[in-house]
Amino acid sequence: MARLVMKFGGTSVASVERIKNVACHVKREVDAGHEVAVVVSAMSGKTNELVGYVTDAAKLYDPREYDVVVASGEQVTSGLLALVLNDMGIAARSWQGWQVPLYADDAHGSARIENVDGSGIIAGFAAREVAVVSGFQGVHKATGRITTLGRGGSDTSAVAIAAGIKADRCDIYTDVDGIYTTDPRMVPKAQRMDKVSFEEMLELASMGAKVLQVRSVEIAMVHKVPTYVRSSFDDPMNPNTGTLICDEETIVEQQVITGIAYSKDDTEITLRQVADKPGVAAGVFMPLADANINVDMIVQNISEDGRTTDITFTVPAAEYDRAVDILTKLKDEIGYRALQGAKDVAKVSAIGIGMRSHAGVAARAFKALSEKGINIRAITTSEIKFSVLIDAAYTELAVRTLHSLYGLDKA
Amino acid sequence: MARLVMKFGGTSVASVERIKNVACHVKREVDAGHEVAVVVSAMSGKTNELVGYVTDAAKLYDPREYDVVVASGEQVTSGLLALVLNDMGIAARSWQGWQVPLYADDAHGSARIENVDGSGIIAGFAAREVAVVSGFQGVHKATGRITTLGRGGSDTSAVAIAAGIKADRCDIYTDVDGIYTTDPRMVPKAQRMDKVSFEEMLELASMGAKVLQVRSVEIAMVHKVPTYVRSSFDDPMNPNTGTLICDEETIVEQQVITGIAYSKDDTEITLRQVADKPGVAAGVFMPLADANINVDMIVQNISEDGRTTDITFTVPAAEYDRAVDILTKLKDEIGYRALQGAKDVAKVSAIGIGMRSHAGVAARAFKALSEKGINIRAITTSEIKFSVLIDAAYTELAVRTLHSLYGLDKA
Repeated sequence: MARLVMKFGGTSVASVERIKNVACHVKREVDAGHEVAVVVSAMSGKTNELVGYVTDAAKLYDPREYDVVVASGEQVTSGLLALVLNDMGIAARSWQGWQVPLYADDAHGSARIENVDGSGIIAGFAAREVAVVSGFQGVHKATGRITTLGRGGSDTSAVAIAAGIKADRCDIYTDVDGIYTTDPRMVPKAQRMDKVSFEEMLELASMGAKVLQVRSVEIAMVHKVPTYVRSSFDDPMNPNTGTLICDEETIVEQQVITGIAYSKDDTEITLRQVADKPGVAAGVFMPLADANINVDMIVQNISEDGRTTDITFTVPAAEYDRAVDILTKLKDEIGYRALQGAKDVAKVSAIGIGMRSHAGVAARAFKALSEKGINIRAITTSEIKFSVLIDAAYTELAVRTLHSLYGLDKA
Repeated sequence: MARLVMKFGGTSVASVERIKNVACHVKREVDAGHEVAVVVSAMSGKTNELVGYVTDAAKLYDPREYDVVVASGEQVTSGLLALVLNDMGIAARSWQGWQVPLYADDAHGSARIENVDGSGIIAGFAAREVAVVSGFQGVHKATGRITTLGRGGSDTSAVAIAAGIKADRCDIYTDVDGIYTTDPRMVPKAQRMDKVSFEEMLELASMGAKVLQVRSVEIAMVHKVPTYVRSSFDDPMNPNTGTLICDEETIVEQQVITGIAYSKDDTEITLRQVADKPGVAAGVFMPLADANINVDMIVQNISEDGRTTDITFTVPAAEYDRAVDILTKLKDEIGYRALQGAKDVAKVSAIGIGMRSHAGVAARAFKALSEKGINIRAITTSEIKFSVLIDAAYTELAVRTLHSLYGLDKA
């Protein structure tokens, strides 16, 4: 007997018919003798309808009341799945965030989970009861108000609840059948991985693989919750395997590079001939940080004359205009000659725990990319990944080149 | 400065546009310096949509999960109204049943209110904050589960919250502009009353006047909450008057008869030649009570031969078939010769506190009805009302006759 969390997203619960299919997945695990907590999202489309009401009601809306309106979507799904399970003869009870309780901070609309009290759900297990938990929502302890975790927060809920009830595994049912070595829509030779380490998955998710929320991987890593990504569209009575995200020790044969990720959501900004003196980087990046603009890759070249320098960095596409606006206003204060921007860029990353012990992994990539005529605009590296910024038009070529280079192509 | 509860039903909050109109009503009272708690229903149509999901999910549904799904409708409205108010510069906070808390018992789907803790809402008043409360829902203290009060429960919520926060008045905004001496759609000469006593309103509501839930009037009477029924379609800046339901002492000039109500939802059942012995009434009515069938008027004639009797009574139309079925199965046990039923009957009632001190009030009615050729099938009386059961075809004639007889016609 194991204790499981099963998480189903909006498309998996988009109608009562699909909720009944989800119930069949739950039944399979219950029949196998497992204790089960299910975490559900709002029915697909409902959240957008509710957000539409909110923006109609008030242009600059109070995020505390936004949360009240939007959290109602998950409440409906959790009640409906509990109804279907009870109707199938499987004892089940719905749990809203405030009932669990799942405590979150009061950053309404994008709250962070503070603590999950799993005792109520565990008491239900003792009575052979399935817990059906509304994802995406929590409650702020001091005010007693409903908070939501932001888009995709149901993954985060699921992993946090798995940690809170000390589950043996958290199964994330989604519309793909696992984690691939790269995007299979772009590279047909991409392979589904059987296992991937928390650290690698964290980099993959951060670098553009959209299967899992970065925050959910962080929580899984910290609390060591084995997390299994699998398809909700499998036959419930005969499901396929997926990808297990787990501790690196449990992965026997380490690849040097595990996966290739890419992101086209970045834009590049270059400041030309910035005065090369102490504090200049702070002068550029502090105002951006104050405006909550997330700067990623930063390249600063030492200037030839020793008095000026060029600074290049990337920001998310959605924040490009704001960033340019802020820097243009501060032109005299920072002291640069010209601002150049490029929106048509992409970031390609290679991720693998094996990089730690293998020298020259990134150098091989730079050579292979240059042989294909791909110009590298910027480079960043970390212990288990490196990223290159290139012209967006070369994204697919670069991803395929690195995927082959590191032996990830399907036979 | 007064402390007010304002209640708005589903049609008054059917769209974001209408919710903005409701906010204008609230603004008027806030600008006048009052402390305001608003109680709202789900947007018109939403509850039916949610109930549809529930019945699709499970034919015999778990009422505890029904409550979870259906209560989400009020949650959306309360959040939206708080958003609109905040956007208008009026500080407001939404309150779900569990946040107030409004404690109810665990008769899920038709729970009764046990207690309202008004301290949180009152603390909000001290901070000049409008409370926007989800009607229709509460929480069961022992289990922490969401309960709903049944259809029309928002009126009941409003009056209970008014009692819990010791409000000076509870304003029920509805689609009519007050309580009439009888149904104005049937009798054009019906008049809107300025005031009516709790006791009379209780009988009017019980006898078919559908403006207010019977339970809400009971709570208003017990806790002496002056309740004001008025139109939500008035100009928010220049509203009309409505009807105040209040203690009889505050009504200076008592009418003998205040209003005429009618109901076409009743059906009549007669058992012929029942053995006239002790315990026979119990033999008929206990099985019906056990089946939760609500018996209203009962007439038992003493038989000529002294050995048998005829028993006539009414049951709600929705329960007619079940009642006939039960009594047919018990024919030998009860010991009657024949069962006769009539579905095409109506109950007409006259209500007035003045009946207490005026003899012969009902007798005048029987005479007037017989002069119009209306046959009275059964009669029941209480301290402040009497009802007659007649053929349904004569309903309008009977209502108009009694309305004129007691001087209620508009000049």
